[in-house]
Amino acid sequence: MAKLWGGRFSKDTNALVDAFNASIEYDQRLYHEDIRGSIAHTHMLAKTGIISESDAEKIVKGLTSILDDIEKGTFEFKTELEDIHMNVEAALTERIGDAGARLHTARSRNDQVALDMHMYMKRVVTEVMDLVIRFEEALLMVADKNQDTLMPGYTHLQRAQPITFCHHLLAYFNMFLRDFRRLEGVWKGADIMPLGAGAVAGTTLPIDRFQVAEELNFDAVYGNSMDAVSDRDYLLEFLSAASILMMHLSRLSEEICLWSSTEFGFIDLDDAFATGSSMMPQKKNPDISELVRGKTGRTYGHLMALLTTLKGLPLAYNKDLQEDKEGFFDAVDTVKFSLTVFRDMLLTMTVNKDRMAEAVHKDYSNATDLADYLVKKGLPFRKAHKVVGEAVAYGIKHRKYLVELTLDEYKQFSPLFEKDLLEALRPENCVAARTSYGGPAPKENAKQLTLGRSLVDGQKKTLHELVTKR
Amino acid sequence: MAKLWGGRFSKDTNALVDAFNASIEYDQRLYHEDIRGSIAHTHMLAKTGIISESDAEKIVKGLTSILDDIEKGTFEFKTELEDIHMNVEAALTERIGDAGARLHTARSRNDQVALDMHMYMKRVVTEVMDLVIRFEEALLMVADKNQDTLMPGYTHLQRAQPITFCHHLLAYFNMFLRDFRRLEGVWKGADIMPLGAGAVAGTTLPIDRFQVAEELNFDAVYGNSMDAVSDRDYLLEFLSAASILMMHLSRLSEEICLWSSTEFGFIDLDDAFATGSSMMPQKKNPDISELVRGKTGRTYGHLMALLTTLKGLPLAYNKDLQEDKEGFFDAVDTVKFSLTVFRDMLLTMTVNKDRMAEAVHKDYSNATDLADYLVKKGLPFRKAHKVVGEAVAYGIKHRKYLVELTLDEYKQFSPLFEKDLLEALRPENCVAARTSYGGPAPKENAKQLTLGRSLVDGQKKTLHELVTKR
Amino acid sequence: MAKLWGGRFSKDTNALVDAFNASIEYDQRLYHEDIRGSIAHTHMLAKTGIISESDAEKIVKGLTSILDDIEKGTFEFKTELEDIHMNVEAALTERIGDAGARLHTARSRNDQVALDMHMYMKRVVTEVMDLVIRFEEALLMVADKNQDTLMPGYTHLQRAQPITFCHHLLAYFNMFLRDFRRLEGVWKGADIMPLGAGAVAGTTLPIDRFQVAEELNFDAVYGNSMDAVSDRDYLLEFLSAASILMMHLSRLSEEICLWSSTEFGFIDLDDAFATGSSMMPQKKNPDISELVRGKTGRTYGHLMALLTTLKGLPLAYNKDLQEDKEGFFDAVDTVKFSLTVFRDMLLTMTVNKDRMAEAVHKDYSNATDLADYLVKKGLPFRKAHKVVGEAVAYGIKHRKYLVELTLDEYKQFSPLFEKDLLEALRPENCVAARTSYGGPAPKENAKQLTLGRSLVDGQKKTLHELVTKR
Amino acid sequence: MAKLWGGRFSKDTNALVDAFNASIEYDQRLYHEDIRGSIAHTHMLAKTGIISESDAEKIVKGLTSILDDIEKGTFEFKTELEDIHMNVEAALTERIGDAGARLHTARSRNDQVALDMHMYMKRVVTEVMDLVIRFEEALLMVADKNQDTLMPGYTHLQRAQPITFCHHLLAYFNMFLRDFRRLEGVWKGADIMPLGAGAVAGTTLPIDRFQVAEELNFDAVYGNSMDAVSDRDYLLEFLSAASILMMHLSRLSEEICLWSSTEFGFIDLDDAFATGSSMMPQKKNPDISELVRGKTGRTYGHLMALLTTLKGLPLAYNKDLQEDKEGFFDAVDTVKFSLTVFRDMLLTMTVNKDRMAEAVHKDYSNATDLADYLVKKGLPFRKAHKVVGEAVAYGIKHRKYLVELTLDEYKQFSPLFEKDLLEALRPENCVAARTSYGGPAPKENAKQLTLGRSLVDGQKKTLHELVTKR
Repeated sequence: MAKLWGGRFSKDTNALVDAFNASIEYDQRLYHEDIRGSIAHTHMLAKTGIISESDAEKIVKGLTSILDDIEKGTFEFKTELEDIHMNVEAALTERIGDAGARLHTARSRNDQVALDMHMYMKRVVTEVMDLVIRFEEALLMVADKNQDTLMPGYTHLQRAQPITFCHHLLAYFNMFLRDFRRLEGVWKGADIMPLGAGAVAGTTLPIDRFQVAEELNFDAVYGNSMDAVSDRDYLLEFLSAASILMMHLSRLSEEICLWSSTEFGFIDLDDAFATGSSMMPQKKNPDISELVRGKTGRTYGHLMALLTTLKGLPLAYNKDLQEDKEGFFDAVDTVKFSLTVFRDMLLTMTVNKDRMAEAVHKDYSNATDLADYLVKKGLPFRKAHKVVGEAVAYGIKHRKYLVELTLDEYKQFSPLFEKDLLEALRPENCVAARTSYGGPAPKENAKQLTLGRSLVDGQKKTLHELVTKR
Repeated sequence: MAKLWGGRFSKDTNALVDAFNASIEYDQRLYHEDIRGSIAHTHMLAKTGIISESDAEKIVKGLTSILDDIEKGTFEFKTELEDIHMNVEAALTERIGDAGARLHTARSRNDQVALDMHMYMKRVVTEVMDLVIRFEEALLMVADKNQDTLMPGYTHLQRAQPITFCHHLLAYFNMFLRDFRRLEGVWKGADIMPLGAGAVAGTTLPIDRFQVAEELNFDAVYGNSMDAVSDRDYLLEFLSAASILMMHLSRLSEEICLWSSTEFGFIDLDDAFATGSSMMPQKKNPDISELVRGKTGRTYGHLMALLTTLKGLPLAYNKDLQEDKEGFFDAVDTVKFSLTVFRDMLLTMTVNKDRMAEAVHKDYSNATDLADYLVKKGLPFRKAHKVVGEAVAYGIKHRKYLVELTLDEYKQFSPLFEKDLLEALRPENCVAARTSYGGPAPKENAKQLTLGRSLVDGQKKTLHELVTKR
Repeated sequence: MAKLWGGRFSKDTNALVDAFNASIEYDQRLYHEDIRGSIAHTHMLAKTGIISESDAEKIVKGLTSILDDIEKGTFEFKTELEDIHMNVEAALTERIGDAGARLHTARSRNDQVALDMHMYMKRVVTEVMDLVIRFEEALLMVADKNQDTLMPGYTHLQRAQPITFCHHLLAYFNMFLRDFRRLEGVWKGADIMPLGAGAVAGTTLPIDRFQVAEELNFDAVYGNSMDAVSDRDYLLEFLSAASILMMHLSRLSEEICLWSSTEFGFIDLDDAFATGSSMMPQKKNPDISELVRGKTGRTYGHLMALLTTLKGLPLAYNKDLQEDKEGFFDAVDTVKFSLTVFRDMLLTMTVNKDRMAEAVHKDYSNATDLADYLVKKGLPFRKAHKVVGEAVAYGIKHRKYLVELTLDEYKQFSPLFEKDLLEALRPENCVAARTSYGGPAPKENAKQLTLGRSLVDGQKKTLHELVTKR
Repeated sequence: MAKLWGGRFSKDTNALVDAFNASIEYDQRLYHEDIRGSIAHTHMLAKTGIISESDAEKIVKGLTSILDDIEKGTFEFKTELEDIHMNVEAALTERIGDAGARLHTARSRNDQVALDMHMYMKRVVTEVMDLVIRFEEALLMVADKNQDTLMPGYTHLQRAQPITFCHHLLAYFNMFLRDFRRLEGVWKGADIMPLGAGAVAGTTLPIDRFQVAEELNFDAVYGNSMDAVSDRDYLLEFLSAASILMMHLSRLSEEICLWSSTEFGFIDLDDAFATGSSMMPQKKNPDISELVRGKTGRTYGHLMALLTTLKGLPLAYNKDLQEDKEGFFDAVDTVKFSLTVFRDMLLTMTVNKDRMAEAVHKDYSNATDLADYLVKKGLPFRKAHKVVGEAVAYGIKHRKYLVELTLDEYKQFSPLFEKDLLEALRPENCVAARTSYGGPAPKENAKQLTLGRSLVDGQKKTLHELVTKR
């Protein structure tokens, strides 16, 4: 069929090229933004006198009817019309005739698609922020229930010092607080209005870009038309924030896999969040955490893909930029899916407190407390470390944990050991004593839980404001 | 609905988890391999007496009817059955009853999907090899027609020395020869049979893995069951080869964009392989080359995604590995699409020989020949270089090209310059004199064209052999 | 030699392992932060009574003398002491004896290195911000001098519409404004104090983390000890911001390469910012822009490397995290180097205004203006586009630019064309008429230059504040 | 100082540009290849009569003396001479005068550096192949000693079926066999001689490229001069092979970390291959495996960096290509280091056979064997799976492993269970029965060990041949 841009061409486009160029399969998800953006453009064209009020009315009515049809599922998208923009515009002209052809006055597909993407980003970034908040709340909820649940704190996957499960989960909570902050940054990068940039050099028509920005709740307007159509920073910022967020989930996923192994046995996943094996009847696999961990790769890949695509492109628009959508859309779906399903998995899992406690009691992870004990008795830290190292080696050799050595045995290593030692070595006391700010003592955790809840409340307010401006 | 692995579970799977796990949307493209693999498995089970001949007959018949239905488009894929394997097996049991349940004897989904993927790789890698050959032939064809077409050879995007367009295209031809070799390597990595590995530890049943390998034309059988189900090297090899191939295309794309710019004007793309602008009526954009250049990013991204997913995974199968398909499938489509459309674009473009020739004549790119002239007269190269540098500076200052300077002017710089100089400076002579092996002289290019054709013939034979073994 | 952590070990470490673990070669650049951090730690230990005032005095004096020696270049770093921290501490103990062994009280290498890196980041991020500002100023300076310099605006590397060189440079200016904003975000992610987290679980000693934060000008303190030692988000944020920044430079690099080609001829680089060829005497290569474009890959690579390293790591510290430094340091050097040298290259290049103007006059890039002309006469845009497409095709066929067609020729295509047409087609008029906000009209550019300068002033204030807090 | 290419330049290069361009710090490792290549070039120049025999003798003598000085450590590299090539050539001219200036006849830095890199690749790829062989031998050695060491085979990090430690290690052995094959491919990509390509367009001088190839043991000569100077495929192939190899090591690293955790307790690392904590005296950290796992990221990053750098570069040489070295060199060092140290760690670790055996006996990982038992009694697999699932659920509920249930209890689930069941459930019998090709039965493992040894022998022969040709 005839292309809208076909004037100077004497031949039809190659069929494969058409297929190659077509983006309607994935960009139809922009329909709402496209139509809403066109309506704002129309209002502006009428107000500035570029088109007549009656044409504007017809266009808005036509667009509204198309929007209705799409939402009802009765609109037929056509591949030969390439993309969402041409699909909507062709339908419009079909429905209202000549007036429809005036909609594209003073704009180009380049700035139109940029507008759609900025609006879409503002929507999805707030949706992701909402899911981050829900996820944080789930972490707080599980943490709250496990304020006294002792477990080993690990470094190098070796038991290091006793902590609480609450403390461990609060570490993740803090990561997602930062993810939220980064998403706020993404909003900022997206909240700037590109329409009116034309294809590259603005327009000679007396448009009012600020009116469009106001109707669509944009905070600012691009100050350079070439930048407006070639800027993809906001997409990179999202992909980067999404990659970091998925990295956080991959770390928690790894731990879920570890904790639900027979060897650790710290948690049991709910049957609804695990799957079995077609061959091994006893298996209960933590598929969700594995899949989320695996999907981290996909998100990194999308980031790398767009960075590569943008490298070395001259200004302004180049067709390479059409590659900005699929990976981004997939990253959005991946992050939303992962946060949602992971949250439910956390909330339904069973925490095996006894098993965790056992891991702390049959262990050498209180060795640091032994060293701290000596420091408090006046030994320089480096020397205390050495003494305790010898005691641990002795314990391993004689198959005794530190709580099982006698005071006499301790005295071999240092005369500073006294009766109060044994109490100091009990894991619950070790943890309770770690009251430094941000430490694992239940008292300190309780403070952090309270602080965490108020930070989430703040995030909710921030989100609420953004939602009204999207 | 009831899961095939649900025995020990007391609860249904969470709906979102199901959706998360489902792969049928993208793995249905494996249907042919899945059914063909199952038939080979059935034959083996019968021959080794693990199942009865009559059961085997029923299974094969049932599978064949399912294959027919899929190819006719009458088979309905169900998301709740998760993947292609379960869809086929459930249909089989529905059609032939109890015997169907025996198909899964002595195999697991882990080795089954591995088999499908290996078979699928053998198919697509040969398809891509075929497209590479066609692409090489297109390059040879255009090169052949441009053996005498002079153009500047560039380094640093600065005109360096005169060459021919034929020579330039043969550089790309050599790249794709290497791509073909790498794809042969991918075949080797895929041509090894995993079925019989079970989920992780083989089976106690008296299977014959070599029979399955023979029926399916595999050259070898995995020697370790754990490796068989967790090896994804062959996918990485493909993604790596695809990334390098797309990198080559991205370089040619860049040149197509440059050459079709007004500034260069070296080629005109056929209208069928260019698109216009919805705003600027005069535009004729080299969209294909831009899009292919952009899609390089996508391919790199898929490579990085799978590398990331695999990093740090313990043996053997982990659900993370389900992420091995979508990116790979998309890379396959991207490479096939790109090679196909790019080839047609090359074959239909117009080469503006006059414009290229003009670029060579109005230029300083014969400066090296001037230096070579002096070397032949006995001056050490480094000194000749200096003399010519001064002549060039003089030329630029007086707005004269090297062919326009007089002998007297040349004599200022060196007494070695003589009358034969002017002939030596003519671009066609400069090029003709560069007869070193692999050089741009038409005589040498003709040799390379002949050599190239015979190499392509060799590739065709190689491919033909592989196709009979896929 | 004896390891400080060797207590429970019965054997020396393997020599290669030592080499593998050693980081002193690259982490010695942290010396200033390490010592300054230790001094703050010492002050806090004394104030809280954990160590005596006299020990503290000795420690501070010892550390200060080490700092002096390093800055004088007389300090000898030892590989067998692994890293900067051990090098400093060993020297301290050597110089002041027992008191030195007390410095490590209530801290671990994990939180110590985290502190150093946070402080280092605050320093380098402000250094990079300063270079961004200088770069922006260079862009504004060159833009300012080229407010009336006509040039073609490109899309798809095809001439699209006439713009000014000022406008083109302002597009880049806007990109770097965003880079500055992202770097502010990096600061925020780094401006949080980790010391006191210990190895993983804080300490039982009565430390005051807020005092350390205050002495070192940190805005906040990590609220979770495990998060404090395993957070690398701020490094990822820097690498991500650096990747985007380098992407911007790669785009400008590409254009510098294009513009300095013979075909474009828009600029001449200063001899001081170009290099020659050892073989081709006439060459003048835009090496800097090529090298910066090439270094974009390196920066992306470092981002991908750290993302990969972090994927799937369980809490808290793992040795994998040692890999966080080299890539980051190299990215810092790359970005600083690139911004510095690129700026000087821009400021010294010659702009060939005549050549740019010629490109605009002998062109069809005013076709959109022709269409706009018709729209203003009442034709719907889509129809005007079609008319102009035909006129362009006619022009190409008859080898005439749009400014060269006669009114009679125009009348063939539409009766709406009138005498005022020819004036409307002159490039300077086309550009001058594009006064939409952010458009290329000199009048509009002047506004944006003014706005730009005030934005840079704002950045300077922001930077000044941050510098006082680093 | 004066540049060798400075003829047409009127100004010195900017100092920072010099620093930016200088590569001598990292490319001096090419000294041996550079000099050996220059000697071969000299021989050819003399034989073809391009330079005199006496000049050739002087040059070779001069180059040999420089080589000696470098190897003795008495040669001083100068940054202002930019790179290894200029450093050598400047020293040569200093030592032998005019004749030295003739060395660069008929070559350019572009093809010279390409030659060096190809020669260097041939050297390091064989060095890495040698390390791979040593690593494989270590795996075979440890596997050999653990043919009867039972352990759980895992999928999803859940115990799946009993296997042997030998079997587990043989899975890794198979991965490294593939790595070796890929490295052979890298050799092929590197074993092609670029010298004589000049800067881009060969030469007019009567060189003999095949003689140079023969002297330097190259199998082939580049058939296109432009391709010869811009091909970096062989570097990408190495980086890709290195990334896959490091991915394999990262997986084994992950398992080493898991196995040496308290929870698994399957192995103890030798003190020489673990490190302690500066804070926690009891810690023994598997640093090597963590560091190698972390360094996987670095290797991926270098691959991504070079892919990015090459994307979209026009032919032929561009300065961007200078970025091909540092990442590649670092990847070489990383892979060599990792293979070496990892091998020693494996050979010195202690395998806790009792702990592994315990994990197999107190487990449900024989559930598949129970299902196989029923299949052998005639039940279709899917039904057997269901029966066993119920038995497992019963066992979990009543806290009994499958070996602990009575025959009566089994009969509740199926009448097919008989007395022979209990023997069939013993882990050693389960493993012994898995004799399918590539399965974990000790009998089958023994076969694979023998096969493995002969494959390694074959690799040694291959390597030996390559070494003679490097």
